[in-house]
Amino acid sequence: MAPGLSDEKKAEDEQSSKKNLIHLCNPHLQQMKEDVLYHFALGTGTQDFPAMFGDVKFVCVGGSPSRMKAFITYIAEELGLRTPGYDHPNICAGTDRYAMYKAGPVLSVSHGMGIPSIAIMLHELIKLLHHAKCSNVTVIRIGTSGGIGLDPGSVVITRQAVDATFKPQFEQLILGKNVIRSTDLDEQLANELMQCSNEIAQFNAVIGNTMCTLDFYEGQARLDGAICSYTEEEKLQYLKEAYDAGVRNIEMESSVFAAMCKLSGIKAAVVCVTLLNRFEGDQINTPHDVLVEYQQRPQKLVGHFIKKYLGKV
Amino acid sequence: MAPGLSDEKKAEDEQSSKKNLIHLCNPHLQQMKEDVLYHFALGTGTQDFPAMFGDVKFVCVGGSPSRMKAFITYIAEELGLRTPGYDHPNICAGTDRYAMYKAGPVLSVSHGMGIPSIAIMLHELIKLLHHAKCSNVTVIRIGTSGGIGLDPGSVVITRQAVDATFKPQFEQLILGKNVIRSTDLDEQLANELMQCSNEIAQFNAVIGNTMCTLDFYEGQARLDGAICSYTEEEKLQYLKEAYDAGVRNIEMESSVFAAMCKLSGIKAAVVCVTLLNRFEGDQINTPHDVLVEYQQRPQKLVGHFIKKYLGKV
Repeated sequence: MAPGLSDEKKAEDEQSSKKNLIHLCNPHLQQMKEDVLYHFALGTGTQDFPAMFGDVKFVCVGGSPSRMKAFITYIAEELGLRTPGYDHPNICAGTDRYAMYKAGPVLSVSHGMGIPSIAIMLHELIKLLHHAKCSNVTVIRIGTSGGIGLDPGSVVITRQAVDATFKPQFEQLILGKNVIRSTDLDEQLANELMQCSNEIAQFNAVIGNTMCTLDFYEGQARLDGAICSYTEEEKLQYLKEAYDAGVRNIEMESSVFAAMCKLSGIKAAVVCVTLLNRFEGDQINTPHDVLVEYQQRPQKLVGHFIKKYLGKV
Repeated sequence: MAPGLSDEKKAEDEQSSKKNLIHLCNPHLQQMKEDVLYHFALGTGTQDFPAMFGDVKFVCVGGSPSRMKAFITYIAEELGLRTPGYDHPNICAGTDRYAMYKAGPVLSVSHGMGIPSIAIMLHELIKLLHHAKCSNVTVIRIGTSGGIGLDPGSVVITRQAVDATFKPQFEQLILGKNVIRSTDLDEQLANELMQCSNEIAQFNAVIGNTMCTLDFYEGQARLDGAICSYTEEEKLQYLKEAYDAGVRNIEMESSVFAAMCKLSGIKAAVVCVTLLNRFEGDQINTPHDVLVEYQQRPQKLVGHFIKKYLGKV
């Protein structure tokens, strides 16, 4: 690298770190004239990202598109940004892969189910935030999960995202070779969210480890999938080992979410409600209206956090 | 197992194999009074599965819900089952996780993106077909992919689904331990589909290996993700190795699809169009209308196969 370029890079890094800009770990992107975010149906050649997204400070992500639409309606109301009769448009209307909504400084994005689905979304979201020159962004996953040893409806704020062997790491194959990345989340942010839960005092919340698996049935030791080769005793033994390792809930996105946010210098948290206690069973057969209320709990907690941060509590 | 039970099981297995019923590799399911297919928002206690699905002979699955709706409209038209003005309802309207449509013997189901997302769908689909007492079912994935050394718009009929190290296997963690499953697909079915492509003669089609990855960006050696730690030379070298191993396209669902269908005794095939040639680039920036036409190609090929099978060609 020429000395001039090096100095420039250094100055840019310093400026980035001062403003807490998004850190892109990809030198190739600098050489691209245009960037098509295919799964968002958005691109730097067709949209003005700084104008559309430059003011974003909070990104909330969750599996279901309808839940992320409900969240933007809720947070807009809470922040006093809601115009009666206004329906927040889906910014990714050109595709049905993901849905995206915006209200003031809050972006709400769906990510589908599983590590690969949220990873595609995060690659494009991180590039979007970078192209938009966003600074000081916090990203929070608000989702659902299976609980271990907790009453259904409890909310788990993730301390560490761990894999199916309870290690706080995310393993992925790059060019056919194993790469292991850290899944550390922001400890202070988790504590602030716990404090918010104490303030609203509407439901049980704990800080605990979250196990992230690649499968909902066999990968989470369920007995009710189309395929199952273990006994109920082996299942319960595995869940007990998870509990002893500090795991309080199981879901399917937190590890790659933590790993990618960490690499990109983004403050991140995972807040999931538990729909059932896996020590008690596998099937989710709680009445629909109860499940809907459970799913609003992470939204309420994170809504309170955002309001507090913006001085609106 | 008591001798009586063993005999009963044996007789049942023989009957299953005669009628080509769906094979459930899970002894626990026999003890369940009711089965809630949570991500379909369907259950044996609330729906009459044999009445709703008993006549299903072909299930076509693909990532995008709107594409699977387009497919059911197309196949209903082709099979002479279309009533003007009739809009096929989404059978999974109670959830936004998956969408499901039916026209005569054809079921069309979306599966989202990635191995975990399609695995959840397949667990519940296989149980649905079993509960409905379906027989002689063929399941075909119709999707999109990145091509290797093929002109964009080419259709690849998968010979073998291989992992990121080009092995024809699917590795998964069950109770924290590695389990390896075969990803063999039905060779005769692949040949029949190739024959159908020759008959319609509208686009280039090949039989080749399909690499299934857990990530779209780093996992497929793209240079345009938010994170990238390798050079263009290393990328091209990896793609060349894949090509030399017989890989003609890359997608994100085929390995678990092949493994689960094989275990359940279901005849299965994967038919994906290539949206770009990965030797030429990474970004999908082909005009929208061209991409839409490309995405119709697997539908046309599989539509022809179904018509032929039902004696309607």
